[in-house]
Amino acid sequence: MGFRVEEDLLGKKNIEDSVYFGINTQRALENFDLGSKSVNLDLIKDIALIKKAAAIVNSNLKELAEDKAHAIIIASEEVIDGKLDDQFKISAFQGGAGTSTNMNVNEVITNRAIEILGGKRGEYNIIHPLNNVNMSQSTNDVYPTALRITAIRKIRKLSSCIAELQEELQKKENEFSDVIKLGRTQLMDALPIMVGQEFGAYAKAIARDRWRIYKVEERLREVNIGGTAIGTGLNATNKFIYMITDVLQDLTGFGIARSDYPIDVTQNCDVFVEVSGLLKSLSVNLIKISNDLRLLNSGPRGGISEIVLPEVQAGSTIMPGKVNPVIAEMIAQVGMRVIANDTAITMASASGQLELNAFTPLIAESLLDSLELLCRAINVFNEKCIKDIKVNAANCRKNLERSTSLITALVKYIGYDTASKIVQKSIKEDKTIKEILIEENTLSREKIEEIMNPFVLTKPGIPGK
Amino acid sequence: MGFRVEEDLLGKKNIEDSVYFGINTQRALENFDLGSKSVNLDLIKDIALIKKAAAIVNSNLKELAEDKAHAIIIASEEVIDGKLDDQFKISAFQGGAGTSTNMNVNEVITNRAIEILGGKRGEYNIIHPLNNVNMSQSTNDVYPTALRITAIRKIRKLSSCIAELQEELQKKENEFSDVIKLGRTQLMDALPIMVGQEFGAYAKAIARDRWRIYKVEERLREVNIGGTAIGTGLNATNKFIYMITDVLQDLTGFGIARSDYPIDVTQNCDVFVEVSGLLKSLSVNLIKISNDLRLLNSGPRGGISEIVLPEVQAGSTIMPGKVNPVIAEMIAQVGMRVIANDTAITMASASGQLELNAFTPLIAESLLDSLELLCRAINVFNEKCIKDIKVNAANCRKNLERSTSLITALVKYIGYDTASKIVQKSIKEDKTIKEILIEENTLSREKIEEIMNPFVLTKPGIPGK
Amino acid sequence: MGFRVEEDLLGKKNIEDSVYFGINTQRALENFDLGSKSVNLDLIKDIALIKKAAAIVNSNLKELAEDKAHAIIIASEEVIDGKLDDQFKISAFQGGAGTSTNMNVNEVITNRAIEILGGKRGEYNIIHPLNNVNMSQSTNDVYPTALRITAIRKIRKLSSCIAELQEELQKKENEFSDVIKLGRTQLMDALPIMVGQEFGAYAKAIARDRWRIYKVEERLREVNIGGTAIGTGLNATNKFIYMITDVLQDLTGFGIARSDYPIDVTQNCDVFVEVSGLLKSLSVNLIKISNDLRLLNSGPRGGISEIVLPEVQAGSTIMPGKVNPVIAEMIAQVGMRVIANDTAITMASASGQLELNAFTPLIAESLLDSLELLCRAINVFNEKCIKDIKVNAANCRKNLERSTSLITALVKYIGYDTASKIVQKSIKEDKTIKEILIEENTLSREKIEEIMNPFVLTKPGIPGK
Amino acid sequence: MGFRVEEDLLGKKNIEDSVYFGINTQRALENFDLGSKSVNLDLIKDIALIKKAAAIVNSNLKELAEDKAHAIIIASEEVIDGKLDDQFKISAFQGGAGTSTNMNVNEVITNRAIEILGGKRGEYNIIHPLNNVNMSQSTNDVYPTALRITAIRKIRKLSSCIAELQEELQKKENEFSDVIKLGRTQLMDALPIMVGQEFGAYAKAIARDRWRIYKVEERLREVNIGGTAIGTGLNATNKFIYMITDVLQDLTGFGIARSDYPIDVTQNCDVFVEVSGLLKSLSVNLIKISNDLRLLNSGPRGGISEIVLPEVQAGSTIMPGKVNPVIAEMIAQVGMRVIANDTAITMASASGQLELNAFTPLIAESLLDSLELLCRAINVFNEKCIKDIKVNAANCRKNLERSTSLITALVKYIGYDTASKIVQKSIKEDKTIKEILIEENTLSREKIEEIMNPFVLTKPGIPGK
Repeated sequence: MGFRVEEDLLGKKNIEDSVYFGINTQRALENFDLGSKSVNLDLIKDIALIKKAAAIVNSNLKELAEDKAHAIIIASEEVIDGKLDDQFKISAFQGGAGTSTNMNVNEVITNRAIEILGGKRGEYNIIHPLNNVNMSQSTNDVYPTALRITAIRKIRKLSSCIAELQEELQKKENEFSDVIKLGRTQLMDALPIMVGQEFGAYAKAIARDRWRIYKVEERLREVNIGGTAIGTGLNATNKFIYMITDVLQDLTGFGIARSDYPIDVTQNCDVFVEVSGLLKSLSVNLIKISNDLRLLNSGPRGGISEIVLPEVQAGSTIMPGKVNPVIAEMIAQVGMRVIANDTAITMASASGQLELNAFTPLIAESLLDSLELLCRAINVFNEKCIKDIKVNAANCRKNLERSTSLITALVKYIGYDTASKIVQKSIKEDKTIKEILIEENTLSREKIEEIMNPFVLTKPGIPGK
Repeated sequence: MGFRVEEDLLGKKNIEDSVYFGINTQRALENFDLGSKSVNLDLIKDIALIKKAAAIVNSNLKELAEDKAHAIIIASEEVIDGKLDDQFKISAFQGGAGTSTNMNVNEVITNRAIEILGGKRGEYNIIHPLNNVNMSQSTNDVYPTALRITAIRKIRKLSSCIAELQEELQKKENEFSDVIKLGRTQLMDALPIMVGQEFGAYAKAIARDRWRIYKVEERLREVNIGGTAIGTGLNATNKFIYMITDVLQDLTGFGIARSDYPIDVTQNCDVFVEVSGLLKSLSVNLIKISNDLRLLNSGPRGGISEIVLPEVQAGSTIMPGKVNPVIAEMIAQVGMRVIANDTAITMASASGQLELNAFTPLIAESLLDSLELLCRAINVFNEKCIKDIKVNAANCRKNLERSTSLITALVKYIGYDTASKIVQKSIKEDKTIKEILIEENTLSREKIEEIMNPFVLTKPGIPGK
Repeated sequence: MGFRVEEDLLGKKNIEDSVYFGINTQRALENFDLGSKSVNLDLIKDIALIKKAAAIVNSNLKELAEDKAHAIIIASEEVIDGKLDDQFKISAFQGGAGTSTNMNVNEVITNRAIEILGGKRGEYNIIHPLNNVNMSQSTNDVYPTALRITAIRKIRKLSSCIAELQEELQKKENEFSDVIKLGRTQLMDALPIMVGQEFGAYAKAIARDRWRIYKVEERLREVNIGGTAIGTGLNATNKFIYMITDVLQDLTGFGIARSDYPIDVTQNCDVFVEVSGLLKSLSVNLIKISNDLRLLNSGPRGGISEIVLPEVQAGSTIMPGKVNPVIAEMIAQVGMRVIANDTAITMASASGQLELNAFTPLIAESLLDSLELLCRAINVFNEKCIKDIKVNAANCRKNLERSTSLITALVKYIGYDTASKIVQKSIKEDKTIKEILIEENTLSREKIEEIMNPFVLTKPGIPGK
Repeated sequence: MGFRVEEDLLGKKNIEDSVYFGINTQRALENFDLGSKSVNLDLIKDIALIKKAAAIVNSNLKELAEDKAHAIIIASEEVIDGKLDDQFKISAFQGGAGTSTNMNVNEVITNRAIEILGGKRGEYNIIHPLNNVNMSQSTNDVYPTALRITAIRKIRKLSSCIAELQEELQKKENEFSDVIKLGRTQLMDALPIMVGQEFGAYAKAIARDRWRIYKVEERLREVNIGGTAIGTGLNATNKFIYMITDVLQDLTGFGIARSDYPIDVTQNCDVFVEVSGLLKSLSVNLIKISNDLRLLNSGPRGGISEIVLPEVQAGSTIMPGKVNPVIAEMIAQVGMRVIANDTAITMASASGQLELNAFTPLIAESLLDSLELLCRAINVFNEKCIKDIKVNAANCRKNLERSTSLITALVKYIGYDTASKIVQKSIKEDKTIKEILIEENTLSREKIEEIMNPFVLTKPGIPGK
C-alpha cells in the first residue's frame, strides 16, 4: 500500500493511495478521533448535490472549464449514489462548523474527478478541491444549505409516516366506534366513552403533528447558498447566486428559495430549534399514546385489560408466557430521545456567536437523528402495534358497569350535593349507583334506566331530557 | 372574626366569614401549602369570563333564573376587574388538573353573587357554586379553554413587544449601515461586514419569531368548552355548546372556535408544547443577540469594543467606574428561564393519561410565566439597551484593518494555496496582507487597492471584476 | 412625601425619603422591571450576615471605627430579622451577577446605620455603602458565599424533610408487610410481592437521596469570601480573609472553609450543577413513587385499586363523589419543576466566561426555588398522603389470584417451554394455572399447592425445594 | 444458505443457519427495525460475563452439569473477547427493558456452547438458552447488574482521562505563572491576573470532577443479581445469590456488593440520574473552559489574542490561512451532547412503573454514550489542544496596560466615589489612570507606581500598605 504526499498550511502529510480523501480529511479524522457516529451520509450526499449544482453553474458562467465541470459532476453523482460512502468517516461531533465535512466532500469529488480525467489522486493541478470544486462557495453557505435540503427530504418521509399513523388510528376509531368503556381522568373512574372515541382523539392529535410538520418545510426552503463565508456573498457573483438556487430546485424537485438576507441564515439557527420543537410536540403525543396503550393493555389478569396489543415477542426470560408491550415502549423511548436531541439543538443554537454558529455539526447530527428515528419508529409502531390492536369488550363493559361516575347523569335532576352523598353510600355499601337510587326511590326505575344509559352518556346533552 | 360552617363529601369545616371562597378552596389552600407562587391572576380572570359567558347562555336557555344569572355576571365582572384578587391564593403547583382553581372561582363568584342578591355568604340555596355557577361546565373544559384565552392575550402582547424589538433593530440597521467592521466566524477574524448588516441579521431572526408567534395563535383558538368532563359533552346541551363559543368570541374579541373533537382537546397538550417550542426559538435568538452584544461591547480598553451599550447602572461594588452589560445579561437569563419552563411543559404534557392530563396547572404556570417574562424583558431590552446602542467606528476600523482575511478577495486571482502562504507570512512577519502583496509584487498597488477595498467586500461578487 | 438626591457615575437621581435603599437600588428597580419574583429573601439575609461579619472583622482590624461598625452590625441584624423585607424588591432575573442585590443590601444597611448614628438617610459621609459596609468585599465574593450559606441552610431543612419521608415509608413497609399482592413489570402481571416490600423499595430510594443531599453540603462549605472581585483578593488583607471565615462559622454554626483557590470558586458554578443534579435524582424518585401510588390507587371500581390514598378534597366540579390523587399529582409536578430548574442552572453555569459567571442570579433563583419547593412539597406529601395510605387487601388478593405468572414457580420442575404452553392454554381457556396443571396432571395437587404458595414466591429460593 | 426452524410461544420461524442467535433475537431484529445504533457492545460483554459467572456458580451448586457449564463458560468468553460481535445487532432503543438483549446473549452463547459440545445450532435439548444459560437469572437482575459493571469500567477510564486533563492544566498553571494579563468579569475589563492563575482555576474545577466521578463508582457497586424478575429472588437460591456476587467480584476485580434490598435496585434508576448529573457537571466545566479558550484565542488580529491554541487543521474553504479553534469547539459540543443525554436519562428514569423501569435500554444507551464520548473527547482535548497552548505575553500586557480597573488599588486611599470620577475622566479624555492621577496630583508618582504595580494586584492585600 503506497502513500502520496499532500500539503496544507500546517505542512506535509502522507495520505494512503487507496483513499479518495486528502490532507484536510486526514487531519480531521485524527483530530476528531471520538469513536462515535460519523456524519450522516444523507447530509454528505446533499453536499455533493450542491457541488454538482455549483459545477453546472460555474461551467455555464464560463468560470470553470467544461471538462473539469463534467468530471466534477460525474464524481458528485457517484457520491450521491452512495458509491463512495466509505470515504466519509469524520465524527459527527467535529469542531469547525462543518468545514471538515465540506472539505471531505471536496477532496473525494476532486480525486475521483481527477481519475475520471485520467490523472492520479493528489494531482490537484488537474482539479483543485477549493479553486474548482468549492468554487464560489464556502462551508458556511454549503453546509447550512445542504442541511436544509436533507432535513426537507426527511421531513417529507416523516410526514408520510405520520399520515399512515393517522390513518391507522382512524381505522381503529371506526373499528371500535360502538365499544363502550369507562373513561378515566387522573386515573380515576370518570364517564363512559367509546373505545373508538379514544382512538379518534389520538388521530386528532397526530393530525395536528402532520399539519405542523408539513407546514414547517417552508421555513427550511430559504437557503443561504451564494452567501459564502458570512452571508455577504464575497466571491460569488449575483449570477451565480441566482442560477444555483434554480439548479438546486431542479435537482431536488423542491421549492428552494434564495434568502433575501443570507447573513441572517448563515448565523442564526432558530429554524432548527423550531423544527425540533415540533418534533418534540409529536414526541409528546407519541409518549402519551404509548402511556395509554400500555395502561389499557395492562394485565392480562391483574390490570385494566381493555385492549390487547399484538404479541410480537416473548417477554421474559424467567416468567413463561409473559408478553410485554415492547413496541409501545420502543416508541416512548424514541420520543424521549427526540426530546433529548432537542436539548442539544437548543443549547447549540443558543451558542452562536457573531457571523456563524460553530456548533452546526451537533445541530445537524441531532436533528437528522430525530427525523430518521421518528420515521422508522412510527412505521414500526404502525405495523407491529396499532394495526392489530384488539379490544376486550367484555372487560370494557365490566369496568364501566360499576362505575360510580354514572351518577353525573343525574346531577341536573337531584343536584350535585345529593348526588355526592349517593356516591359515598354506594362505595361504603359496595353497591352500584342504580341499586342505591332504586332503594332510595329517588327516581322511577324506568327514568333511571333512561337517564343512566351509558351510550347516551357518551354524547353531548342532558340525559333524559 | 366569625366563621361559617360549610360541608362537602369529606365533612364540615369552619370558613372565616371574611372570605368569599368556600370549603373547596379552603381545603386546597391547606393541601397545597407550598409557599410558592399562586395561580396566575390573568388565568383566574379568564375563568371568571367563562363563568360570565355560561351565565349568559344558561339564562338565555332558561336553565338559570334571570336574577341569579345577573348576580353571577356582576360577580364575575368584579373578579375580572381585579376587585377580588386576594381571594385567589391557591398554589400554582396544585394537583387536580385545575379543579381547585375552578372551584375557587366558582365559590368566590357564588358568595359575591349571593351578597348581591341580599343573602349571606354560604347560603348556597340562593346560588350554588356547582349547580349554578358551574352549570353545564366541568373543570376539564373550563380550565383548558381559559388557559387558551389567557395565552392568546399574552401572545398578542408579546407579538407587539417583538414587533417593537424588530423595529428598533431595523433602526440600528439603518443607523449603522455605513460603518464597516470585521466579521468573525468561530470568533476568528473573517470578512468585512457593515455594523448595520449585523443588526439587520438580528432583525431578520426576530421577524421570524414575530411571524411564528403571530401564526401560532390560531392553534390556541380551538377550545373544548362544552366538552365537560372528558370531552363527550355530558350535561351540556348542543345549544349551550354553540352559544357559549359565540359569547366568548364577543367577550374576548378573538376568533374562538369550538373544537370539532373536544375529547382530543381535553386530553392532549401538544399545542402548549408547540407554543412553548416557539418561545424557545425566540429565546435562542435573544440569547444569541445578547452573546454578540456583550462580546462586541467588551472592554472598554481590553476587549473588542466595537459597540457601546448604554450605561444603565454602576457595575461593581469594588471596581470604581466599571459598567456592565446588565440588560443584555438579563435578557439572556430570561431566555434560559423560558427554555427551562419548556422542560416543565414538555414533561408535563408527555405525562398525560387517558381522558385528561393531570398536570395542566404546571403547564399553565410555566407557559404564562414564559409569555409574561418575555414580554416584559423584551420591553426593557428595547428601551434600556437596543435603542441607545452606539458604535465605536474607530475601533471597528482598527480591528478590521489588519485582518488577514482580506486576502479572500484575491483567491480568484492567485488561488487558495498561494493566498494561504501569504497569510502565514503576514502573521509571521507581523505585517498586513497589503504590505506582503506589495513586497511580493503579486499585483499592482492599484489593483490591490481596488480589490481589497473593504466596502466592496461586504457585497456579493468578485472584487475587481 | 419628600425626596433626597443621590448621585452615582451616571448622574443624580431623586430617591424617596421613605426608603432605605439608595440610587443603585433605584436604578436596578427601574432597569429590571420584569414584574416577576424578586430576589429570595433568605439570600438577602445571608448577604446581610456577611455584612455583619465584615463589620466585626474590620472593626477588630481597626479598619472601621467602632461606632460605625456597631451601627452596621445592628442594621444588618434588622435585615436578618426580616424587619426591612420590603426594601428588597429587585427582580430575581437581574443582570450584573448579583451586584444590584449586594448594593441593595449595602444601601439599606448603610441608611439604617446612619439613622442609628443619628444621621439622615443619604448622609453617606457618616457611613458609606461601599467604603464602609462593603469594605474589603466585592459582590463577586459576597454573593457566591451568601448563596452557599443559604443553600446549606435549605439543604439541611430538606434533609430533615427527606428523613421524615423515609420514616413514613418505612412505617408503611412494616404496616403492610404481610399483605400479598401481584407485582407488575412493564405493567404486565408478574410475581407476587408484599405491599410492604413495595414501600420498602421506595424507602430505600429515598434513603439514597437523603444520603446524597446530606453529603453534598460539604461541597458548598468552601467559600471565596476575601477573594474580592476576581478571587485574587485585591483590597482584602490576609488577616481579613482568615478572620471573616471564622466569624461566619460562628454566626452560622456551619463548618465553613476558606477556599484555597478563590479564583476558581469565583468563576466556576459546577457545584450548583452538582447539587441541582442530586435534587433531580430525588425528583425522579418522587415522580416514580407518585406514578405508582396513582396507578395502585386507580379506580375505585374500574382500576387497580390495591391501595387507597387519603381523600383530601372533592375531585370534580361535575362528577359528584369523585376524589382524585391530588397530593401525588402535586409532588410529581414539583419534581418536574425541579427538573426544569435544573435546565436553567445547567445552561447558566455553562455560560460562565473568564473570571466570573454573569448568570449567578438565575442560578440562585432556580436552586433556592428547587430546595424550598421540594421541602414544602415533601412535607405535604408526608402529612396529606403517605401517612394515611390504606391497603385494599381484598383487591390485592383478587388481582394476584388469577395471575398466570405464578407458573414461574414451576419452571425449575417443568422447564420454560412447557410452562409457556401452560400459560397460553390458561389464557385461551380462561382458567387459572392451577386448574390447567391439575387437569394435565403435571404434578400432584399437593405439590402444586406447595410450590405455588404465593407467600413463598416473595422470597429467594426455589419453591418446593 | 440453509435455515433451521425455531419455535416460541408465538409460533415457528426460520432462522438462518449461519447465525448463532435464535428466534427471540430474530423477532427483536424485526420488531425494532430502527436503523439506528445497536446495543453497546461493552454492555453485551458484561452480560456475557454474568452468564459465565452464573454457569460457574450453578455448576458448583450441582444445578448445571459440568460439561454444559464448561461449554457455556467457553462460549461466554468468546463473546467477551469480541469474537461474536456481529451477532448483536438489536437496536439500542428496543422496548422490553433489555429482555431482547439478554435473550440475544443467551441464544448466542447457547448455540456456540452446543457447537462446542458437538451439537448443531438449534439443538436446545443439548443446552437450553433459558433453562441453562439463563439459569437462576432474569433479565431484570442480569441487565441492571451488567449495566453497572460496564458503567464502572467506563467511569474508571474516564477518571483517568480527567486526571490527565487536570495534570496538563496544572502544567500550564506553572508554565504561565508569571505572565500577567487583564482579568475580565462580565466580559468587561477587571483586575490583573496571571495566565497561570486562570489555568489553575480550570485545574481546580476539573479536580472536583475527578473526585466526584471517582466517588460515585461506589454507588454503582451495589447490584441486584439474584433478585430475578422483581427483586424478590424467586428461583434463585440464597447460595446462588451469595456466590455469584463473589464470582463477579473475582472476574471484574471490582468491589461488587449484593444489594440488601434488590427489589429497590430492580425498579429504581436514580443512581443513573446521579451519575449522569455528575457527567453534566463535568460538561459544564468543559464548556466553560472551551468558552474561555476560544475567547482568549480570538483574533489573530481583531480579537483578544492573549493565548494561541495549537493549529490542527486549515479552518476555511474560502478564507485562506484561517485557522479555527476546532478542538475547543468539539469539546463544547460533546458537553452539550452529554447534557442532552442527561435529559433522556432523567425522563426515562422518572417513567419507571411499579416493579421495573421499562426504559432501561434508553438509559443504558445514553449513559454509556456519555461516558465513552467524554473519555475520548477529553483525550483529544488534552493532546490536540491543552498541551500545546501558547501565551501571547505581549498582547496580555497590552490589554492590561490601559485598563481603568487598576484604579481599584487606590480605593482604600481615595474612596470609591472619587475613584469612580477618575475613571470617567480617563475614559472621556482617553488617557490612562496613571496619567490622570499624576495630572491631578492625587498621590505622588512613586506612591502611584508602588500601589498600581499590577503584579501586586494579583495577590490578596491592600497595595502600598
